[in-house]
Amino acid sequence: MTQIGIAGIAGRMGKLLAEEVAAAGCTLTGGTGRGDDPRALFEKSEVVIDFTHAHSAPAHAALAAELGRGLVLGSSGLSAAEEAAVAEAATRAPIVYAANFATGVNLVIAIAEKLAAALPGAQYDAEIVEMHHRQKVDAPSGTAIAMGRAVARGRGTTLEEAGRESGRDGHTGARGTGTIGFAALRGGQVVGEHTLLFAAGSEHIALTHRSFDRRAYATGAVRAAQWLKGRPPGLYSMNDVLGLG
Amino acid sequence: MTQIGIAGIAGRMGKLLAEEVAAAGCTLTGGTGRGDDPRALFEKSEVVIDFTHAHSAPAHAALAAELGRGLVLGSSGLSAAEEAAVAEAATRAPIVYAANFATGVNLVIAIAEKLAAALPGAQYDAEIVEMHHRQKVDAPSGTAIAMGRAVARGRGTTLEEAGRESGRDGHTGARGTGTIGFAALRGGQVVGEHTLLFAAGSEHIALTHRSFDRRAYATGAVRAAQWLKGRPPGLYSMNDVLGLG
Amino acid sequence: MTQIGIAGIAGRMGKLLAEEVAAAGCTLTGGTGRGDDPRALFEKSEVVIDFTHAHSAPAHAALAAELGRGLVLGSSGLSAAEEAAVAEAATRAPIVYAANFATGVNLVIAIAEKLAAALPGAQYDAEIVEMHHRQKVDAPSGTAIAMGRAVARGRGTTLEEAGRESGRDGHTGARGTGTIGFAALRGGQVVGEHTLLFAAGSEHIALTHRSFDRRAYATGAVRAAQWLKGRPPGLYSMNDVLGLG
Amino acid sequence: MTQIGIAGIAGRMGKLLAEEVAAAGCTLTGGTGRGDDPRALFEKSEVVIDFTHAHSAPAHAALAAELGRGLVLGSSGLSAAEEAAVAEAATRAPIVYAANFATGVNLVIAIAEKLAAALPGAQYDAEIVEMHHRQKVDAPSGTAIAMGRAVARGRGTTLEEAGRESGRDGHTGARGTGTIGFAALRGGQVVGEHTLLFAAGSEHIALTHRSFDRRAYATGAVRAAQWLKGRPPGLYSMNDVLGLG
Repeated sequence: MTQIGIAGIAGRMGKLLAEEVAAAGCTLTGGTGRGDDPRALFEKSEVVIDFTHAHSAPAHAALAAELGRGLVLGSSGLSAAEEAAVAEAATRAPIVYAANFATGVNLVIAIAEKLAAALPGAQYDAEIVEMHHRQKVDAPSGTAIAMGRAVARGRGTTLEEAGRESGRDGHTGARGTGTIGFAALRGGQVVGEHTLLFAAGSEHIALTHRSFDRRAYATGAVRAAQWLKGRPPGLYSMNDVLGLG
Repeated sequence: MTQIGIAGIAGRMGKLLAEEVAAAGCTLTGGTGRGDDPRALFEKSEVVIDFTHAHSAPAHAALAAELGRGLVLGSSGLSAAEEAAVAEAATRAPIVYAANFATGVNLVIAIAEKLAAALPGAQYDAEIVEMHHRQKVDAPSGTAIAMGRAVARGRGTTLEEAGRESGRDGHTGARGTGTIGFAALRGGQVVGEHTLLFAAGSEHIALTHRSFDRRAYATGAVRAAQWLKGRPPGLYSMNDVLGLG
Repeated sequence: MTQIGIAGIAGRMGKLLAEEVAAAGCTLTGGTGRGDDPRALFEKSEVVIDFTHAHSAPAHAALAAELGRGLVLGSSGLSAAEEAAVAEAATRAPIVYAANFATGVNLVIAIAEKLAAALPGAQYDAEIVEMHHRQKVDAPSGTAIAMGRAVARGRGTTLEEAGRESGRDGHTGARGTGTIGFAALRGGQVVGEHTLLFAAGSEHIALTHRSFDRRAYATGAVRAAQWLKGRPPGLYSMNDVLGLG
Repeated sequence: MTQIGIAGIAGRMGKLLAEEVAAAGCTLTGGTGRGDDPRALFEKSEVVIDFTHAHSAPAHAALAAELGRGLVLGSSGLSAAEEAAVAEAATRAPIVYAANFATGVNLVIAIAEKLAAALPGAQYDAEIVEMHHRQKVDAPSGTAIAMGRAVARGRGTTLEEAGRESGRDGHTGARGTGTIGFAALRGGQVVGEHTLLFAAGSEHIALTHRSFDRRAYATGAVRAAQWLKGRPPGLYSMNDVLGLG
């Protein structure tokens, strides 16, 4: 019976999380809304789930570290500084941080790495295109970036070293060899679509994931919270939670 | 059995045109090379196809007008004076003048306008995604922009007024209502792929064009030549040829 | 601010219609349930939407004619006599009658005909692929066949004359020129996806419709109601509403 | 700088192979034509690539074994006796033998098996759709069937036991649980497109391969030759070359 608190409980994702906490037989300790102080929520919870905003992540991670609580972090668009703050807090608290908590998405990210390992960047241009609903405020999506990082890993490098070409517009120059391209579409109520394309002159290989139901994210996040209870400090991924190695 | 002559028959485009004249069951009357006098070619042809140079266009149009022949004009980069000369000749000869003769591209742009007229921007988010080979140095493609202009026209506005969201990257904010989105992929040797997507909450409608080789331009030009035979004088577009109104 | 009443407001479709009336900024004047007298509803409405039963259609059409109201009729399975009664009433009242009110489906079928008219069957092979949920028991879908009929119409023939190649399996022989191909996928909970592809050697043109929920039918019906207000008497189709001629 | 010789260098495939040897920065030692003695070619090469005829395979394999050279064997239609001779030679020489050397096709088939192992057939319906040029006379393609077999293997069964639903047309009944669906499109000059879709209620995962020309076979064969240099004797597959285990 994990004691779970939800940051941003009144939002669309917050409501789904509350339902999934109940469905999983866990205890909902409460939640925060806009402007609420999160300290009280962390004090009464074993694990807090946060799908709110990137800029809340450092403060929530710091509270988890200070109070010895678990944190399941699903916000996207964290800056390098925000990610560093989360990683630092994870030396003192157990944190699951993932771009996407759905099982299928994590599978696709694992496969992306295998594909990239077999398709050399000098011949196969890797492009990632994602589509989300019209309300999404950042691009590319966290899942798209996670796919890009998986491609880079598969090629024995990092996304930063490989170079990202994101949001091409105007005079871009020719495509860089080995770089990873990103494009973002926004429209309708698309929960999430991601395609990773490897384009060579004589063949294309594409891997696509389409989410229809946001609930899969909430189910995975609650599963992560249950798994997190009692873990030692550390920065964990959904691969750890799902045992995908 | 239209009698067709080809200006610049020895060039890459000229060779494709000659092949397409044969494939369409028309008669190839001959062709001109660099420095040849085009009068003989016009005399023995019902229609001449010219994809050579902008500066040849006025002389070719004048010959068509003098001899009562048809002209299919695919040269690009005509100056205002050259365009005026062509328009003047078109009062005495039937001329098809277009920037892009690929049947599908013209058709897709015309259909884009019709779709947009039927799908209000307040509910249907219009997104255009294009992919081209890795050497392309600018984004979005001219065809993508032409599609965007067609969408705007269909909605009784302009692309500038509707607003374009091109190359989303970083903190973009929510999608603007009625704006037109653009995204560009680069990779492999893709000749050209364009998709226009209208995304509403309960349905998506997508229109896609994929080019595999430059031959489509030649095929369209020969089709225009066949259509032109026996037409009254006038300056026609590929929309006229294709019956797209 | 069209004043709209809903016959059968308590049913699944009626509830969706009521929500869409509100979403469109129209006024909901009320609704009827089983056994209610519809006269009062027609009296206080400018347009009534009826997705109930075929046998209610003549009485509702007669009330529209008597009171000078609009009627949007979405019931299916009308007998010839019931259709005749609706047509007679439409000489005195404006009525939209359609088998499918989803904007996109009607639009895509109308566009399919235009595309086919411009893309000769000798060069452009027309293929239709549809996907539906795993419970669907027949193939191809009615909408796929309607798309095929539209392609045949656009080419000045019928589906029967053009020939259909459906469910290729085993030794099929080479594709017939001008035939229309059908393929069916089944899986998951897909509400409905249809793609019409025109494939030539140098280019492909594809038109895709994806349905995500039944709400599209309600949205289209409310749109028809708004369009109907103030129209002269007549029996209109969704093509009229959508300006698809 | 692998030293590579090409059996049948004057044929269509031989020419592509020679180009790809150069493109990969390897050294072309020479080639054989009809009636040439292959011994000299094997003597001066580290690896010989053979896409000629099934009946040449045993002699080429024996030469590789005698001289300690590598052999990349891409001929199709080997008899059981010819395959046994190749296998025997592979106890003394390193040989890559495969039906399809296109990197992407092999990769996609290997990944298909991994995806299927992770996505239970009770929830994820597997559908395979392929498209080929209008001249193709059978359906589904051999590659589609190979993908289907890989899906079955991943689920610990066979295609025959899982059941195939191919060419749905007419009254099909609901989709069978765990079966594998096939659909075939024909049109234009499509070299080959294959998509494997796993469709569940809340997510879809799709894997697509598109071939644009036969060069992919040559590219893969040269890659196999480079990988083969210095390997111990053994009969290897493209999965071994690509590290797909």
